[in-house]
Amino acid sequence: MATELFDKQKTIDLRRKHIGPSCKVFFSHDPIKIVRARGQYMYNEKDEKYLDCINNVAHVGHSHPAVVSAGAKQMELLNTNSRFLHDNLVQYAQRLQATLPDKLSVCYFVNSGSEANDLALRLAWQYSGHKDIITLDNAYHGHVSSLIEISPYKFHQLADREQNPHVHTALSPDVYRGKFREDHPDPATAYADDVKDIVNKAHEKGHKIAAFIAESLQSCGGQVIPPAGYFQKVAQHVRKAGGVVIADEVQVGFGRVGTHFWAFQLQGDDFVPDIVTMGKPIGNGHPMSCVVTTREVAEGFTASGMEYFNTFGGNPVSCAIGMAVLDVIEQENLQGNALEVGTYLTHLLEEMKEKHPLVGDIRGRGLFVGAELVRDRAKRTPATAEAQEVIYRLKEQRILLSADGPHRNVLKFKPPMCFSREDAELAVEKIDQILTDIEAALGMTLPDTAVSEHGSSKRKAHGEENGHHMYSNGKGHSLAPAAKSTKRIRT
Amino acid sequence: MATELFDKQKTIDLRRKHIGPSCKVFFSHDPIKIVRARGQYMYNEKDEKYLDCINNVAHVGHSHPAVVSAGAKQMELLNTNSRFLHDNLVQYAQRLQATLPDKLSVCYFVNSGSEANDLALRLAWQYSGHKDIITLDNAYHGHVSSLIEISPYKFHQLADREQNPHVHTALSPDVYRGKFREDHPDPATAYADDVKDIVNKAHEKGHKIAAFIAESLQSCGGQVIPPAGYFQKVAQHVRKAGGVVIADEVQVGFGRVGTHFWAFQLQGDDFVPDIVTMGKPIGNGHPMSCVVTTREVAEGFTASGMEYFNTFGGNPVSCAIGMAVLDVIEQENLQGNALEVGTYLTHLLEEMKEKHPLVGDIRGRGLFVGAELVRDRAKRTPATAEAQEVIYRLKEQRILLSADGPHRNVLKFKPPMCFSREDAELAVEKIDQILTDIEAALGMTLPDTAVSEHGSSKRKAHGEENGHHMYSNGKGHSLAPAAKSTKRIRT
Repeated sequence: MATELFDKQKTIDLRRKHIGPSCKVFFSHDPIKIVRARGQYMYNEKDEKYLDCINNVAHVGHSHPAVVSAGAKQMELLNTNSRFLHDNLVQYAQRLQATLPDKLSVCYFVNSGSEANDLALRLAWQYSGHKDIITLDNAYHGHVSSLIEISPYKFHQLADREQNPHVHTALSPDVYRGKFREDHPDPATAYADDVKDIVNKAHEKGHKIAAFIAESLQSCGGQVIPPAGYFQKVAQHVRKAGGVVIADEVQVGFGRVGTHFWAFQLQGDDFVPDIVTMGKPIGNGHPMSCVVTTREVAEGFTASGMEYFNTFGGNPVSCAIGMAVLDVIEQENLQGNALEVGTYLTHLLEEMKEKHPLVGDIRGRGLFVGAELVRDRAKRTPATAEAQEVIYRLKEQRILLSADGPHRNVLKFKPPMCFSREDAELAVEKIDQILTDIEAALGMTLPDTAVSEHGSSKRKAHGEENGHHMYSNGKGHSLAPAAKSTKRIRT
Repeated sequence: MATELFDKQKTIDLRRKHIGPSCKVFFSHDPIKIVRARGQYMYNEKDEKYLDCINNVAHVGHSHPAVVSAGAKQMELLNTNSRFLHDNLVQYAQRLQATLPDKLSVCYFVNSGSEANDLALRLAWQYSGHKDIITLDNAYHGHVSSLIEISPYKFHQLADREQNPHVHTALSPDVYRGKFREDHPDPATAYADDVKDIVNKAHEKGHKIAAFIAESLQSCGGQVIPPAGYFQKVAQHVRKAGGVVIADEVQVGFGRVGTHFWAFQLQGDDFVPDIVTMGKPIGNGHPMSCVVTTREVAEGFTASGMEYFNTFGGNPVSCAIGMAVLDVIEQENLQGNALEVGTYLTHLLEEMKEKHPLVGDIRGRGLFVGAELVRDRAKRTPATAEAQEVIYRLKEQRILLSADGPHRNVLKFKPPMCFSREDAELAVEKIDQILTDIEAALGMTLPDTAVSEHGSSKRKAHGEENGHHMYSNGKGHSLAPAAKSTKRIRT
């Protein structure tokens, strides 16, 4: 068992002293100290076990021995830059390519999802010769300055922000809370038409579109699953304008969605992005990431005359680790497990919807699942404080879950891919108890029987929310307006 | 011994197929395949040994067993993000802080030098509330889009670049080739006054200065060592304008300069930057980096209301590796070795200057050494082709060196810190032979005896170079104008 160097309070004090105060911990009033982890379990300094429902980075399970061994072995041999030839680099590129449509054949290896998305923008700007980027509302694409500018999830946090005139925000294709909902006859076209309008308006101002960028499924944005066909239509509008389509798979790639290896493939075989970015799960925690694009885009980038060098990107250790991750996904059939367990988890959560008025919507693909909590099913009022309460109480029971989305009211499941049916049952059982308690304290009951009878969405479409909602202080149930003091915790 | 998976030609073919063509190899007409490395030696697929004079990333020596073991051990236990408390994070921050002046006390851990410099800009923008950045001519600060804009080394490569109106390029404080040279009575003040002029001109246009950023010693810019006192004076002008000073130590930190742990300390105790960025050597090849700043700047960043999260930054594995690197530097007295061997190497190269007319200037601190080749000592005409010839011929003799600077005529030494006196002797002996050959072929002799008698610089100051120089094709000595076809290779 791992031991501590400092007692927990000393760790907290040193962190306060030496780590940037903008870097937040989970559960700031009583953070968790983790000293070891294995599979889908993490252990604190007292060796107490936590069920991990959120670490999509530890994709094939925390500290997977095959990944650790591949990394250690290669570190002993060689870790250098890609100015030298090395078989790991080309073999890994070949293996990643084999998971993708043929035309996505050229790789750039970098160190983080942020580096990947920034490079994707550079590729798009150079290839198209245009400047403007269309992003989705509530999107998060990374922490470097170019990506803060295209991440409404981040820049909405700034009081005094200056909107970049070359960045356009399209409607998030959210059929539960967005402008066009499940009762709309064709939300895919309606949301894609918003992108078309943006393109047209940009042209009127003399602007030109370089790229449309979106996560294949929006993660921080609230586990949003765009209607099938949306990306195809968007791609038509954007390509017609001379731009490219970037699929950000940093959070959702590598088999997580169960039916496919990449989440963009959920849209159908007729959609192939021009650029795909990868990150978090790619190295099971090792800092690495990748951009894959077409030969045409890659040649366009080269034509600038500027070479691209990334000191650590594509080093033999990162590539060895990346290949070990692919091996484990295959050997342990983790994509299949994501489909099976994810479907089961979604089913269990759907049952919660029949029992609990707080549960407004359940949506998911594989082990990427969201449960959106609402204080009123008809108005879809976000139950932000209640979602935080669920997260805090789960933590007391040693289950790690988070809440996200623009209203921070969507419970996010994105566990290591070895998550089991029993894990799903345990998590949902605890959520069931907590929701029962919260609803009793609030005096909430199911508004009508329609939902419980059918177990699905007889929803009515509504206009904009009023922007106000009640919140608890995370400990009791004191109700007060506005949620300014709640902080976003993203994983 | 490591074996190959593919034969070399197959590796080259796969690389052509699957790796972005903007990512260049060393020696593109006959690249080197490296399969293992140890200390300051790298081995190709035939187990032939190369002396490595350039990999400043493999700081404590390639595949150092203590670093490998620390990484492997921590990977087995836990690798997760910094939203959980972990002792490695705070202990490592504490140890880094101990190497720095007291006021530099707050760390942000990220994944690459590029992420570090981008974050440094974000800190500066937010803290100052200003937008404009002053950078040095020929500077290179990273590959993300915000850093290309402040890297003349890169953006000068673009034919159709658009200069960002908020970026100002100051004179590189190069006393050999710059505007103010070694015969100037006070080059530190003269170069700093150029920064002052930039500040004043920016103010006249209503612009405000957020930061001045510079490598403590310019690396890609040509191993430039600014005159002592320069940064102090620059800091005065920049701080008076409300901006901060960023010292980029990505290439030159961690004891390389021998007398000090950080290269900015060469300027004297009275200079403390507001932000220091670290990278390459920090993890001996593991993708990691760090930004350290003052409490004031850190609080200013937090005041924006936007939190900062970096998925991989500061994970327990990276921190364990970072601490192992600090341990090895200390235990093996690598800073002391850098001073001793670096001084010896500089001395040997100074001797070359007495013998070889091609050697225009030798400059260095510790194991960061440059030898600038010129075709004419009086005019200081860059000997670009000759420098390439030296690099190619050294490669044939299995010595890895590179040439850099705006004219690519500066031989760059920045080897692993375990580089020995024997290594230095071997490299200089080979350079001696090669220079003798080249000079014989060109019919070059020492212009006069002044230099050889004194072994140092009785130089005359001259105006601008004419911008033309001769070059060989890297194989023979055919002479032709312009160097457009030569490519920059940076490490």
